[in-house]
Amino acid sequence: MKSYLSEFIGTALLLAIVTGSGIMGETLGAGNAAVALLGNSIATGAGLYVLITLLGPISGAHFNPVVTLMFWKLGHLDLKKMLGYWVCQFSGAIAGIWLTHLMFSLSIIQESTKVRTGPGIWVSEFVSTLALLAVIRIGDKEAKDRVPMLVALTVTAGYWFTSSTFFANPAVALARSLTNTFVGIAPNDVFGFALFEVLAALVMLVLFCHSKRQS
Amino acid sequence: MKSYLSEFIGTALLLAIVTGSGIMGETLGAGNAAVALLGNSIATGAGLYVLITLLGPISGAHFNPVVTLMFWKLGHLDLKKMLGYWVCQFSGAIAGIWLTHLMFSLSIIQESTKVRTGPGIWVSEFVSTLALLAVIRIGDKEAKDRVPMLVALTVTAGYWFTSSTFFANPAVALARSLTNTFVGIAPNDVFGFALFEVLAALVMLVLFCHSKRQS
Amino acid sequence: MKSYLSEFIGTALLLAIVTGSGIMGETLGAGNAAVALLGNSIATGAGLYVLITLLGPISGAHFNPVVTLMFWKLGHLDLKKMLGYWVCQFSGAIAGIWLTHLMFSLSIIQESTKVRTGPGIWVSEFVSTLALLAVIRIGDKEAKDRVPMLVALTVTAGYWFTSSTFFANPAVALARSLTNTFVGIAPNDVFGFALFEVLAALVMLVLFCHSKRQS
Amino acid sequence: MKSYLSEFIGTALLLAIVTGSGIMGETLGAGNAAVALLGNSIATGAGLYVLITLLGPISGAHFNPVVTLMFWKLGHLDLKKMLGYWVCQFSGAIAGIWLTHLMFSLSIIQESTKVRTGPGIWVSEFVSTLALLAVIRIGDKEAKDRVPMLVALTVTAGYWFTSSTFFANPAVALARSLTNTFVGIAPNDVFGFALFEVLAALVMLVLFCHSKRQS
Repeated sequence: MKSYLSEFIGTALLLAIVTGSGIMGETLGAGNAAVALLGNSIATGAGLYVLITLLGPISGAHFNPVVTLMFWKLGHLDLKKMLGYWVCQFSGAIAGIWLTHLMFSLSIIQESTKVRTGPGIWVSEFVSTLALLAVIRIGDKEAKDRVPMLVALTVTAGYWFTSSTFFANPAVALARSLTNTFVGIAPNDVFGFALFEVLAALVMLVLFCHSKRQS
Repeated sequence: MKSYLSEFIGTALLLAIVTGSGIMGETLGAGNAAVALLGNSIATGAGLYVLITLLGPISGAHFNPVVTLMFWKLGHLDLKKMLGYWVCQFSGAIAGIWLTHLMFSLSIIQESTKVRTGPGIWVSEFVSTLALLAVIRIGDKEAKDRVPMLVALTVTAGYWFTSSTFFANPAVALARSLTNTFVGIAPNDVFGFALFEVLAALVMLVLFCHSKRQS
Repeated sequence: MKSYLSEFIGTALLLAIVTGSGIMGETLGAGNAAVALLGNSIATGAGLYVLITLLGPISGAHFNPVVTLMFWKLGHLDLKKMLGYWVCQFSGAIAGIWLTHLMFSLSIIQESTKVRTGPGIWVSEFVSTLALLAVIRIGDKEAKDRVPMLVALTVTAGYWFTSSTFFANPAVALARSLTNTFVGIAPNDVFGFALFEVLAALVMLVLFCHSKRQS
Repeated sequence: MKSYLSEFIGTALLLAIVTGSGIMGETLGAGNAAVALLGNSIATGAGLYVLITLLGPISGAHFNPVVTLMFWKLGHLDLKKMLGYWVCQFSGAIAGIWLTHLMFSLSIIQESTKVRTGPGIWVSEFVSTLALLAVIRIGDKEAKDRVPMLVALTVTAGYWFTSSTFFANPAVALARSLTNTFVGIAPNDVFGFALFEVLAALVMLVLFCHSKRQS
């Protein structure tokens, strides 16, 4: 029970940090989107370090359905728990968006109009997700106590070096379609993101996650 | 005696860092408030890491009446010491504001005119304070040597993802009404901030701080 | 075999981070190149910390022919392996540039027109390379577990304090001639960079790397 | 001998980082001095972390006459060594300025015209120096392995929260009068800086450095 709550709250706060810092950057940034992205990427990295450090011992701090999928393949959790985590991650992500709208006095229910589509962006999401999963997988084996810092800095760098700004997370992609602010994504474009994120996860699973499980 | 001095000096320097970096950012930022907030949030995080690392062993490095309240509830200090800490934190916060005005050659005595009010901002302060107290509480139990980094990065992220810019501290809220600069808050609006900070603290105390104390 | 793959992938991702974050900064930066350099230098430092932490145990995480040369002189690898690493680093660097163009939907094959030449820039590359090699050499001996952070922060600072923006790497210099974006360098100017990088490496080898090898 | 060289090189590189990143920020910053200060303060913090980590074990990594004075008072070095360190620090600081001018293709010999004077600035230098010395003194006793990070983040924050931008170092103050760039200080104003830096050092020595020495 405690681990489900941890995934719900962690994903919600992650989305609040991502979305809120995007709103703040865009509102104050006087039209300079690079300054907004600086605030956005620094805040997200800082927040991820805190969330993973504190909630990692409770639930693993996945906050991401494809991360949970990878750990299921590796035998860290069973099918039932994976499904439960997914529910918490998707609902937590949406709750985080709505909490942010509440904090910034915006309409709670929104729909993004920001187009994020095309081959370059899909390749970016594929690379992002593969990179994120590899960092978590290798970090978990070789440098466990540095995983919070490794994931945080991967995402901070990722916001800058991919044209998709490194969503790498289907729950995040879906939830961000519900905010018409700096970090939004038009609902029509969510499928492309999710597709390439899942493809990257499958490649990761087949190539680098030789399972101990027969499920 | 040494612990009271530590709370006074630590809170004063915290306010000097918060206020001074705000002034610097606004003065140099050529109208781009996001750049000012970048300097403000990076300096505050950096300063908090240093203050908590060095003064933590002496006084616990609370610098915040609601943090002291939580540790009182948990039995780390008695009623008399809590009241003493509160006096040091409020007076230290004000001293820090005045020191900053002195350093920037501004009138020492000021009153802010910056309006910070409304439901969105109050929700932000409630979320901020709950988040800060939870980070300190869980960090203190699970990752004690990382608490300075955890609190620093929580506040750096918090400046960006809440519409209130994460005061989360009644002594800070009161003192910041005494500076008419980037980080100021109109005196009329202090009560709303303090109310939601205290409410968050009470929620934290009731739900997550089952006391060893019978006071 | 695994170590060659590590050098190839690590150098490719390093170049993707360097180039991608440069494109992002320049595209969003509204003509303020210092904001672009902030994103560029923060992303590069963050990415280097991750890459060196994770790939260091596999291949040493050189990603740089002159670093490999230094470790060859120190007897960490033999001539054949050094040549193999060089092939992986140069080909990886170019692959990273092309991957970035793919992610940002740009023409894959480009040639930079950015002039980077002159005595000031050559002195900068000499100083950069000497500094990088000294940091790696001393760090490796005295503070091995901090090497990822030391190298990351050296490069982040280096982007700012040298007029050449701290290439310090012949594979990076060559590959960056193949992108006509923020971090590009005109092909004609690559030779000057490489020359002063190699000179710095030779000075380092003669003065500070008394070899255990008789090759 | 090795420790003198360490103080010379470390102080020279510190000044190169401070001055070079200032030039870069001002040149690229499109008139937004807060962006320049961001680059300047991040690069200086990053560089200090590296220099203190690597050179600390060799010479203590003072790079600052008043830090050396404090450690002399505490009995860490004798009068002759203190004088030797001072010579290395002042000459290293000047060499660092000249190296920077060389790297940026500027006239080597310059004189700053930037006015930095007045009571606010002097109070700032007094506070800066007291803070720096206290951080080093307490850090050295209580958290020795974190001193590089503590000093780096103190200076990064200090650039933002003091009106003098935290010189806190007479060798730095003198050397910066020799560059007419972002970080310069008019020669006439050096005396005021040095005076308040030395005053702060004396206060520190009398109050917090009860010596083991009878010199």
